[in-house]
Amino acid sequence: MTRFAMNGKVYLVGAGPGDPELITVKGIKLLKEAQVVVYDRLISPELLKYVNPSAELYYAGKAPGRHSLNQEEINELLIQKAREGKMVVRLKGGDPFVFGRGGEEALALTRAGIPFEVVPGVTSAVAVPAYAGIPVTHRRIASTFTVVTGNETENKEEREVDWEKIARVGGTIVILMGLSNLPFIKGELLKYLPATTPVAVIYRGTTPSQKIVTGTLEDIVEKVLAAGIKHPAVIVVGDVVKLQGELGWYSPSALTE
Amino acid sequence: MTRFAMNGKVYLVGAGPGDPELITVKGIKLLKEAQVVVYDRLISPELLKYVNPSAELYYAGKAPGRHSLNQEEINELLIQKAREGKMVVRLKGGDPFVFGRGGEEALALTRAGIPFEVVPGVTSAVAVPAYAGIPVTHRRIASTFTVVTGNETENKEEREVDWEKIARVGGTIVILMGLSNLPFIKGELLKYLPATTPVAVIYRGTTPSQKIVTGTLEDIVEKVLAAGIKHPAVIVVGDVVKLQGELGWYSPSALTE
Ligand SMILES: C[S@@+](CC[C@H](N)C(=O)[O-])C[C@H]1O[C@@H](n2cnc3c(N)ncnc32)[C@H](O)[C@@H]1O
Ligand SMILES: C[S@@+](CC[C@H](N)C(=O)[O-])C[C@H]1O[C@@H](n2cnc3c(N)ncnc32)[C@H](O)[C@@H]1O
Repeated sequence: MTRFAMNGKVYLVGAGPGDPELITVKGIKLLKEAQVVVYDRLISPELLKYVNPSAELYYAGKAPGRHSLNQEEINELLIQKAREGKMVVRLKGGDPFVFGRGGEEALALTRAGIPFEVVPGVTSAVAVPAYAGIPVTHRRIASTFTVVTGNETENKEEREVDWEKIARVGGTIVILMGLSNLPFIKGELLKYLPATTPVAVIYRGTTPSQKIVTGTLEDIVEKVLAAGIKHPAVIVVGDVVKLQGELGWYSPSALTE
Repeated sequence: MTRFAMNGKVYLVGAGPGDPELITVKGIKLLKEAQVVVYDRLISPELLKYVNPSAELYYAGKAPGRHSLNQEEINELLIQKAREGKMVVRLKGGDPFVFGRGGEEALALTRAGIPFEVVPGVTSAVAVPAYAGIPVTHRRIASTFTVVTGNETENKEEREVDWEKIARVGGTIVILMGLSNLPFIKGELLKYLPATTPVAVIYRGTTPSQKIVTGTLEDIVEKVLAAGIKHPAVIVVGDVVKLQGELGWYSPSALTE
């Protein structure tokens, strides 16, 4: 008898950035087989159509006016369902290990003796810029990219993100969860980078409601306000944004169909 | 008549990191429909089974003893085939815009007036660590990750990668194309990071021949030599590597099937 003989299994599956066809073949296969699906807010509703009608479906995200689970409740739900012997898919936006607390869920599962598997996904950090015509790396323009959370506010007591160091790396900077904090981030980056540094903000990238605003560190906050851009958005800082002028004309079919 | 009426179209498709099931639903659909497929070295041979037998298949990668195309020849091939009115899939390892010169191919196409589309993929920078049990971000351990090319040697005249700045960012460092250059990279990072900084080197991640070596900046070069690790490998530097001890026991099914 193996250690986990009585248990089901939990798959931490990346759903991709928005376009439902950007889920992986492995991800969609598991989603169809799942007996329990626990899904996040930014998951494409299209994907939920693949869930077996007899499966249990739980919403874990945070949307105004709807009950949502905190991280501990999510962990407990995953553990409990696996202990019932069920095949559980935990469907997470983008890639499960790029922010989004997939690592914490994996630790909680392994500490509870539940077998799990990670199914990586296409992360919004790379794909959202790509659909907007911005490669995160490009020969002689950026030989590195740094992905960072933008949700630490000015007033947070112990900040983990050091914008000076991020600014000085020199390559592309991709900021997730940073939109509402953009004025603070802009102010920090302006201390170390030229005001003319190109910036793009992409709202609901890879979906039909995608919106792109490009500008510079100097004017991006105004432009974002003028365009009425909201959460979720990816912020890209660096010279690769200039390629958007040449590459941004094309429309991935998901946006036009 | 539209601008591109006479032309075919080129899809720059990310094949994912190795496990053939980590290609996207959109990627596999296009691969099946393609009239021409131009593929790279690190593509899973499994994926080529989906190509229509009547399609033209071109190998673009660099393998010893086999003719391979240089970047200009690849660009010309894509343009020529599109001008013949064909539907072309350019299949690239991981994500097309994470190194691998996808941006250059996109620019060459757009400058030649050829319509193209990017189909993002699961990048080895995130997925190879994930299959090894290493999340690139983790609350209170890493709120940023930097992906960097490791192929600039000590003797290169104008280096674009500044290891001091990379070392100082503070989060996870993911190095692609760095294996043969590891002694130099280790030396550079040791100037700015403690000798005890955790490092993992993962060979052919997400495939049945995956090998993982973990150690510290101090001992990783010896350990990699002892294990006989070769190209291709992803190098991960930072405290998230410590999680491998707890999370690395699980085996994604692709590795055990
Ligand atoms: C909690 S993080 C999760 C990231 C996810 N794990 C990934 O790999 O894409 C959520 C953030 O991802 C970004 N994001 C995700 N999907 C997006 C989309 N379609 N368009 C723009 N931003 C998106 C936004 O910055 C959002 O605040
Ligand atoms: C030219 S880069 C292309 C990266 C690709 N575009 C991506 O997003 O994964 C090739 C490098 O990717 C890494 N790589 C790709 N697949 C890998 C795998 N299965 N295992 C380990 N490293 C891999 C290695 O560092 C290799 O030298």
